[in-house]
Amino acid sequence: MSRNAPLVGIIMGSDSDLAVMRRASEVLTEVGVSSETTIVSAHRTPLRMVEYAQQAAGRGLKVIVAGAGGAAHLPGMVASLTSLPVVGVPVSGRKLDGLDSLLSIVQMPRGVPVATVAVNNAENGGLLAARIIGLSDQAVAERIRARAEKSANDVLERARRLEAVGPAEYGE
Amino acid sequence: MSRNAPLVGIIMGSDSDLAVMRRASEVLTEVGVSSETTIVSAHRTPLRMVEYAQQAAGRGLKVIVAGAGGAAHLPGMVASLTSLPVVGVPVSGRKLDGLDSLLSIVQMPRGVPVATVAVNNAENGGLLAARIIGLSDQAVAERIRARAEKSANDVLERARRLEAVGPAEYGE
Amino acid sequence: MSRNAPLVGIIMGSDSDLAVMRRASEVLTEVGVSSETTIVSAHRTPLRMVEYAQQAAGRGLKVIVAGAGGAAHLPGMVASLTSLPVVGVPVSGRKLDGLDSLLSIVQMPRGVPVATVAVNNAENGGLLAARIIGLSDQAVAERIRARAEKSANDVLERARRLEAVGPAEYGE
Amino acid sequence: MSRNAPLVGIIMGSDSDLAVMRRASEVLTEVGVSSETTIVSAHRTPLRMVEYAQQAAGRGLKVIVAGAGGAAHLPGMVASLTSLPVVGVPVSGRKLDGLDSLLSIVQMPRGVPVATVAVNNAENGGLLAARIIGLSDQAVAERIRARAEKSANDVLERARRLEAVGPAEYGE
Amino acid sequence: MSRNAPLVGIIMGSDSDLAVMRRASEVLTEVGVSSETTIVSAHRTPLRMVEYAQQAAGRGLKVIVAGAGGAAHLPGMVASLTSLPVVGVPVSGRKLDGLDSLLSIVQMPRGVPVATVAVNNAENGGLLAARIIGLSDQAVAERIRARAEKSANDVLERARRLEAVGPAEYGE
Amino acid sequence: MSRNAPLVGIIMGSDSDLAVMRRASEVLTEVGVSSETTIVSAHRTPLRMVEYAQQAAGRGLKVIVAGAGGAAHLPGMVASLTSLPVVGVPVSGRKLDGLDSLLSIVQMPRGVPVATVAVNNAENGGLLAARIIGLSDQAVAERIRARAEKSANDVLERARRLEAVGPAEYGE
Amino acid sequence: MSRNAPLVGIIMGSDSDLAVMRRASEVLTEVGVSSETTIVSAHRTPLRMVEYAQQAAGRGLKVIVAGAGGAAHLPGMVASLTSLPVVGVPVSGRKLDGLDSLLSIVQMPRGVPVATVAVNNAENGGLLAARIIGLSDQAVAERIRARAEKSANDVLERARRLEAVGPAEYGE
Amino acid sequence: MSRNAPLVGIIMGSDSDLAVMRRASEVLTEVGVSSETTIVSAHRTPLRMVEYAQQAAGRGLKVIVAGAGGAAHLPGMVASLTSLPVVGVPVSGRKLDGLDSLLSIVQMPRGVPVATVAVNNAENGGLLAARIIGLSDQAVAERIRARAEKSANDVLERARRLEAVGPAEYGE
Repeated sequence: MSRNAPLVGIIMGSDSDLAVMRRASEVLTEVGVSSETTIVSAHRTPLRMVEYAQQAAGRGLKVIVAGAGGAAHLPGMVASLTSLPVVGVPVSGRKLDGLDSLLSIVQMPRGVPVATVAVNNAENGGLLAARIIGLSDQAVAERIRARAEKSANDVLERARRLEAVGPAEYGE
Repeated sequence: MSRNAPLVGIIMGSDSDLAVMRRASEVLTEVGVSSETTIVSAHRTPLRMVEYAQQAAGRGLKVIVAGAGGAAHLPGMVASLTSLPVVGVPVSGRKLDGLDSLLSIVQMPRGVPVATVAVNNAENGGLLAARIIGLSDQAVAERIRARAEKSANDVLERARRLEAVGPAEYGE
Repeated sequence: MSRNAPLVGIIMGSDSDLAVMRRASEVLTEVGVSSETTIVSAHRTPLRMVEYAQQAAGRGLKVIVAGAGGAAHLPGMVASLTSLPVVGVPVSGRKLDGLDSLLSIVQMPRGVPVATVAVNNAENGGLLAARIIGLSDQAVAERIRARAEKSANDVLERARRLEAVGPAEYGE
Repeated sequence: MSRNAPLVGIIMGSDSDLAVMRRASEVLTEVGVSSETTIVSAHRTPLRMVEYAQQAAGRGLKVIVAGAGGAAHLPGMVASLTSLPVVGVPVSGRKLDGLDSLLSIVQMPRGVPVATVAVNNAENGGLLAARIIGLSDQAVAERIRARAEKSANDVLERARRLEAVGPAEYGE
Repeated sequence: MSRNAPLVGIIMGSDSDLAVMRRASEVLTEVGVSSETTIVSAHRTPLRMVEYAQQAAGRGLKVIVAGAGGAAHLPGMVASLTSLPVVGVPVSGRKLDGLDSLLSIVQMPRGVPVATVAVNNAENGGLLAARIIGLSDQAVAERIRARAEKSANDVLERARRLEAVGPAEYGE
Repeated sequence: MSRNAPLVGIIMGSDSDLAVMRRASEVLTEVGVSSETTIVSAHRTPLRMVEYAQQAAGRGLKVIVAGAGGAAHLPGMVASLTSLPVVGVPVSGRKLDGLDSLLSIVQMPRGVPVATVAVNNAENGGLLAARIIGLSDQAVAERIRARAEKSANDVLERARRLEAVGPAEYGE
Repeated sequence: MSRNAPLVGIIMGSDSDLAVMRRASEVLTEVGVSSETTIVSAHRTPLRMVEYAQQAAGRGLKVIVAGAGGAAHLPGMVASLTSLPVVGVPVSGRKLDGLDSLLSIVQMPRGVPVATVAVNNAENGGLLAARIIGLSDQAVAERIRARAEKSANDVLERARRLEAVGPAEYGE
Repeated sequence: MSRNAPLVGIIMGSDSDLAVMRRASEVLTEVGVSSETTIVSAHRTPLRMVEYAQQAAGRGLKVIVAGAGGAAHLPGMVASLTSLPVVGVPVSGRKLDGLDSLLSIVQMPRGVPVATVAVNNAENGGLLAARIIGLSDQAVAERIRARAEKSANDVLERARRLEAVGPAEYGE
């Protein structure tokens, strides 16, 4: 169901980013937000990027989640070509621990914001898009709340178990 | 007008952050989004922070823009207490150039995203909130587009002048 | 014995931090300081965190040792909700080598200190709590001194062996 | 009064650190904790440092607050020569924004903790010492609480004023 | 003369970069390479950027020198839209000392190189372009060699003076 | 063919860099630019380095691609001994992720530029040389364009497949 | 032979540093400089450290090579307790890639220098000591020169082989 | 006197480094070590650098102190061209706080050590050279010891004054 009439476009510079970015798709499905996932490379397919960004609003997308590594230009360039909110997910490469992609995404100049999340944290990229969608979709907002509650309960349960057995016996 | 029925809550940990954060308020007014601005300190008024975050959605806020410096906990803590989208603005202190606040804001764990913008870039914090509001308010979206167009025209005009007089004569 | 009437509360944001934080519990037991260990997530259970911090002194805790990773807000938030000394242990994630958690914990604003120790060094988190407890418990202070002496003797013994066999033959 | 029977020893590597470290003394006086302040250089007076650290407990000191810059060895060396809790205050030099002193102080090996606070934040160094003293002195603990409450009220008052006049008119 | 039939296009994201980038123009004039200077913003005028990059080769440009700050996308995006060599000049902003722009420019993915020079070193940006032009223009190559020789002689002269008067008397 | 009459000299400080640098040779062969590859160590064979750099232009080389790690002096020193364009490839060592070599290569003083590419990205080192060669060799320029087009088509094909099967089923 | 009448004292904070530091001993033996190797912990055996440093010159040592990790205080503290030249070798820990130990060792205050070498590069620590010894021992100086020449010849031989077989066939 | 028969050669890449490097000359004069000071640029006068380094030992120099900024190649290149001990002084530029020059100097490969001191700390560069000279010149060693003793006494005197007047009254 989530692949029809997508509200969120998930894009990445290379299919090698999919191992990280897939999580955005999964979490959006989990909270009932339809999404599409594709590859749009700022550097290898710049014109496709222009087209994708310019057509996004017209195609009914509400949020774009863009993941990229290294000199990560995709999120910022897309943000300069649309008025939709754009979420940036820094993907770490083999060196520099994603600091290069984080700075390349977050340090946008005045006028063109990118909503940056943590390095490799595509789950948060998806959830941020869901929070935005949830502003106009009560069911989504409710699922986000339920998800947070479930997460809290999970912490409480583990806390109780840890308190019961003690840190020495607790099997992570 | 922008102080009635605010859609965006702009908060900061200290009034010393206002020199940076005021820009968020200004740009929201510019694109016709009502906002409120106040001080909510994660470390000095933690219970006020809990209250503010928990009541935000009920009070009609759609987005919270939170600025903080150093060990900047305000945006992430607020995000953990509401399902609204939360925008984080890292404010630089006297040392470390805001790298501490940037990492403290952006590196949130899975489940609780903060939409982080550039160090000291409260204008982008405001504009990101405006893009989100613009999803359900065509007039706002239109003003964002007009603003971007005006900015593009401003570049073109300066470019023409620079091309005309040359870099040696161009007065910045 | 160390789980009754705990003087030190060891908390962490997730049970995935236990592999690091368990060491705080062990070292406290070693020097005869009772402790409790549980999970308190700043972001997933913020209200539990408020409650835990506010009740800590009343429950007889003297020191709180809090470990967290990434945008590590737990130690600082707890410190803002209690007047007890709070020790922060930065836990490294998969990227950035714990620099994010170190800065998120140590760079607290004026008024709310967190006693930060080295990245992943929960042993020192526990020992710092023990030094504090030792101020009013001679037996604990004595055990800390004995432990340091044993550690010094261990160095001396290894030094003698290394001097005897030489660096080429010494088996680490 | 605070210079008699000191409970906290405030030391620094050079009198050039006093502009930063003086704040530790002031805040301790403010919450009624007696302290002494002197210069102890790890590198220029290493034997004085050994003596100071070894005699601290016997002289009745409960906590040592040590500030140092650059390759900041003073806090860690003192911690290796006493079982008292030692608080380290990284002092920034002209270059590197105190990152060198922060890492030199906080990254202590297992066995010898230093309670590190933020760069140049001697106020927090003093307050951390006060929290520790407050464990066995109710009057001090009460003054710390009162100070935090006053700080919270100050935030609330500024927040009310900011809400009343708006961000454009608020004079920082 | 150097503004006719330009071989090198010098572009920057904003006229605020001109204080840095003007040096590229000057040094190219100095070695007899014609250049043009204009403003092309990746984020404010993305389509102008596409057009500029795509037409550059056809207009006779041989090298593009692009300066940008923060999330500096201009050099890399231009490099993805042309096969000409593109030189990137990281321009520092108020914070982070240009580390963000350096990483945003240099860390390009495989397939799209940017020839990055030092932070704010537009002189080297220009000289790198000149070295490239000099491959097919002996007069330019000769002027580059003469310039280097003059620079060496200048060092020698200052060295002789320093040796003569000694470091105490030498007026910088 | 590409080993005769080389236009590009690929050098590195040690044969341990060959695992990275070989890629420069391969990509140059791919686009039809002849190259030679050898070892020239700035620190172990400084006079060989002087000789190599001084003779490069005379031997017909047009571009030098120099890779080095750690205190990476080879690219900058070669650039100071020739007027040819020199491309620097930072090679990462076991520690510091190549940040040391990146800064050692890129931060050249005014007057002596090195065209620096991303850490370990010898492919881009080779392609940058090819772009320069392509300025005077249409066949090379055409092959670079064809390569970019092929790369774009590869993205499109993968994008279509990802869109067809969805992110869950797509096998990277 | 090299363990009698040692001229160089090699010390380290823990036998876990021996895997790195052993190389200093080996290279000194190689160039005919006698050395001793032992463990001296700044933090676990501070008084032994004082004694070692104070007696070093009297025992005939000429240079001390000190390796340490994390908050690496050993080299600087020893340098403050002797007038002998002290060489510091930063040893990397599990996190931060040795940046903490590098800064802790190199950033010494005016008056007390430590001759710092690269992270984990105990070979250079040993060779630096050897260069110093070589100032008054022609045989040592000659062996250092011969070693450098051998190293250069090794480069030349590998270069010739690489040139002969080409980068594709060369087996590293 | 100190300019005749110099034992220490102080060199720097540019006379703009003299403001920092002059201190090396002064401190050497102070402890009675003759030195010479001149400009030797790795990048602008590479052949002069080769000559200087190769002739240094023959001219009677015992130690070379080399200061440089940015991509600081001078100390390492000189070290590769002589067997004398070479001391490197990282000089900070306008950006990056000297981290670039520190890493460019200290991270030398195995075989060619540079004795690196703190950023801008030419005094320590000079003193390190003096410690080496002092190994074979008792008068120098004695002056170094006297200087350290004077420095210790200065600390003691300031400490006594600070203790007497208290931190509030002490005028720095």
